[in-house]
Amino acid sequence: MAEFFKALTIKEARAVITGYLKEFRPPVKVPLLESLDRRLAFAVTALEDVPGFERSTVDGYAVRARDTYGASEGLPSYVEVCGEVLMGRQPEREVGAGQAWYIATGGMLPRGADAVVMVEYTEELDGSTIGITRPVAPGENVIRKGEDISSGEVALPAGHRIRPQDLGMLSSVGVNAVEVASRVKVGIISTGDELVCPGDKPGPGQVRDINSYTLYGAVEACGGEPCLYGAIPDNFEKLKSTMKQALDENDLVLLSGGSSVGVRDVASRVIDSMGVPGVLFHGISVKPGKPTIGAIVEGKPVFGLPGHPVSTLIIFEIMVAPLVRDGGYPSGEAESLTEFPLRATMTRNLRSAAGREDFIRVKLYRRDGRVYAEPVLGKSGLITTMVKAGGLARIPPGKEGVEAGETVEVKLF
Amino acid sequence: MAEFFKALTIKEARAVITGYLKEFRPPVKVPLLESLDRRLAFAVTALEDVPGFERSTVDGYAVRARDTYGASEGLPSYVEVCGEVLMGRQPEREVGAGQAWYIATGGMLPRGADAVVMVEYTEELDGSTIGITRPVAPGENVIRKGEDISSGEVALPAGHRIRPQDLGMLSSVGVNAVEVASRVKVGIISTGDELVCPGDKPGPGQVRDINSYTLYGAVEACGGEPCLYGAIPDNFEKLKSTMKQALDENDLVLLSGGSSVGVRDVASRVIDSMGVPGVLFHGISVKPGKPTIGAIVEGKPVFGLPGHPVSTLIIFEIMVAPLVRDGGYPSGEAESLTEFPLRATMTRNLRSAAGREDFIRVKLYRRDGRVYAEPVLGKSGLITTMVKAGGLARIPPGKEGVEAGETVEVKLF
Repeated sequence: MAEFFKALTIKEARAVITGYLKEFRPPVKVPLLESLDRRLAFAVTALEDVPGFERSTVDGYAVRARDTYGASEGLPSYVEVCGEVLMGRQPEREVGAGQAWYIATGGMLPRGADAVVMVEYTEELDGSTIGITRPVAPGENVIRKGEDISSGEVALPAGHRIRPQDLGMLSSVGVNAVEVASRVKVGIISTGDELVCPGDKPGPGQVRDINSYTLYGAVEACGGEPCLYGAIPDNFEKLKSTMKQALDENDLVLLSGGSSVGVRDVASRVIDSMGVPGVLFHGISVKPGKPTIGAIVEGKPVFGLPGHPVSTLIIFEIMVAPLVRDGGYPSGEAESLTEFPLRATMTRNLRSAAGREDFIRVKLYRRDGRVYAEPVLGKSGLITTMVKAGGLARIPPGKEGVEAGETVEVKLF
Repeated sequence: MAEFFKALTIKEARAVITGYLKEFRPPVKVPLLESLDRRLAFAVTALEDVPGFERSTVDGYAVRARDTYGASEGLPSYVEVCGEVLMGRQPEREVGAGQAWYIATGGMLPRGADAVVMVEYTEELDGSTIGITRPVAPGENVIRKGEDISSGEVALPAGHRIRPQDLGMLSSVGVNAVEVASRVKVGIISTGDELVCPGDKPGPGQVRDINSYTLYGAVEACGGEPCLYGAIPDNFEKLKSTMKQALDENDLVLLSGGSSVGVRDVASRVIDSMGVPGVLFHGISVKPGKPTIGAIVEGKPVFGLPGHPVSTLIIFEIMVAPLVRDGGYPSGEAESLTEFPLRATMTRNLRSAAGREDFIRVKLYRRDGRVYAEPVLGKSGLITTMVKAGGLARIPPGKEGVEAGETVEVKLF
């Protein structure tokens, strides 16, 4: 059955999944301080002006700007100091013509004043008079009411990932809880008769299940909630019942191993036996990671990841991580900025096949101001090649390789 | 007092703090699955070989390589198929001369066999004989015992940050708990008579404390444990008692506001009153963020961050984040790779001062394969300028500005 599928490009594979994707992250309300790195379910609108009044941005004197026009070091403008703005208080009196109030950074401008002269451009004449040695324009050294955010303005759009500065901004407009997309629950199943759980001692011919823990960490790193279902033998019924449970308990299911096009390929049969549309593709034109299965079962995305630990993690990054992190794939020009933000110089020639996208494990280092990517060679069955790598470089499908000295796009990991 | 301090470069300021820094992250043992993003306190040495036996990397036939020498499509080498390797089992018999065993990916090589012929390069002759159409070399399509990791090898060095692939690798050698550096506890104090807590309604002349929540998020994003002490009035005694409590309960203390060199500058007096060495510098040659205080009190780093929210977050990133994340500052060539990994083209001319390091809030976008950095202009008192920015570009101290079209180093945030 799987043999009839043609390998898709990453773009095609993503489009196929996107076609069936529903919103699987219902909104949940969380206290503001617990919302870091979560995605806003809805836009947040400011209901207050920040600041709520005109503030000084410097230490100096609040004045009427026109009283300073023409002032210079040789011919200062003299004004009478009539008071001092107390921090956190509304000044009681107005600044009249020819008058000034001392004001510190962040203080509230008294009525009548429209600018602040920095203390550096004043000279004290006697206890109550100062000379101003440089003119100010109206609004100078002042933050206007609502200049940071004004009431009614969209403070943050829906889908925005909350960063430290967003916490600060939201707290400034009095928001103390936000509705965010709930964390994506991801069920993780490993298959293979040779696998034992990480806590067990492998016998002859057996190995510990590497992919479960790798995927657990990868899901967590994307803000998802991983749930492990252990290492299941390559047995149709056992795999089907585990898959059923994982689908019931999660928003997305990952099955690793059992997806190479071989005799023991039960993964796609199990997935197909569970309902329509079932398997949507079996094979992506990438290296490593070609024998990837993409499916939708009970409306939920299911991925059959290759058994090799390197391929599993790379396919996770390409096909699964955007769904867990953002609920969908990036589109357009934004794509390679967010996915492969770094540019580096490749240190050696590498061949690829046209039409195939290659992902190269690389060590990154900097020399004389340039960043270099040195390929980490080794079989994709060796997890240590991923441990030694600090990034993943890509060779786009249109190219037949890269030459030493060429620039490549790199994802750090 | 503070007036006598000369502004330091970032490098100098970091060196001053480093000179007094002690290890403030004692090791703590955590289950492997809870160790993501933590730093290893000690190197981890593998105590087993992975894999523990020779494994096939393909579906095919385990053979003696010499039996395939000279094989071609025109003149295949014929061998007798004597068995099938069951996954997770040790093959009972040896592969003799002229013999082959069917083996799937990940299967254990039978004794006698030293290579695997891919099934694609074989043809079935009758039930018990196959023709091999391409020769294999000894070791071909085989992962050697211990090829991934060998017993006694350092699997990960001390200080390594644990990533998903590291979880997988550690699980493969039977590690189920690791000793990691404990999370850095960071006390956060805001000062200012004009500040009210985020939950309160500001009166005239008052604003909500933006920095506490911003820093809370920033500490969390670095893997630290933030603890808020609220907004404290600019009062020597109140600030000193809060500072004392924060120092007792944390590894590092941040004080924001109250650090501009003005009449109300109590922060450095409070810090200096608490013991030696106290304030080490007051002022860094950066923009924004110049009026930064660096201190060591009771052996713990204390930073007085500027009151403006933009400056506070930028100085946090430069001076505090590396301590919380890594226990110290990066050194040498690694520095700008990990700190400012992205290269982008600046879209407009910006002036800087020689000897000063400038950090520019930028929006990032990609067009025709290039990444552009568009400055977000605005006063450093406006938190929304940080909200609108997707990155921070730097102009190094040796430069007097950048021109449109020049490449700058950018940190995403």
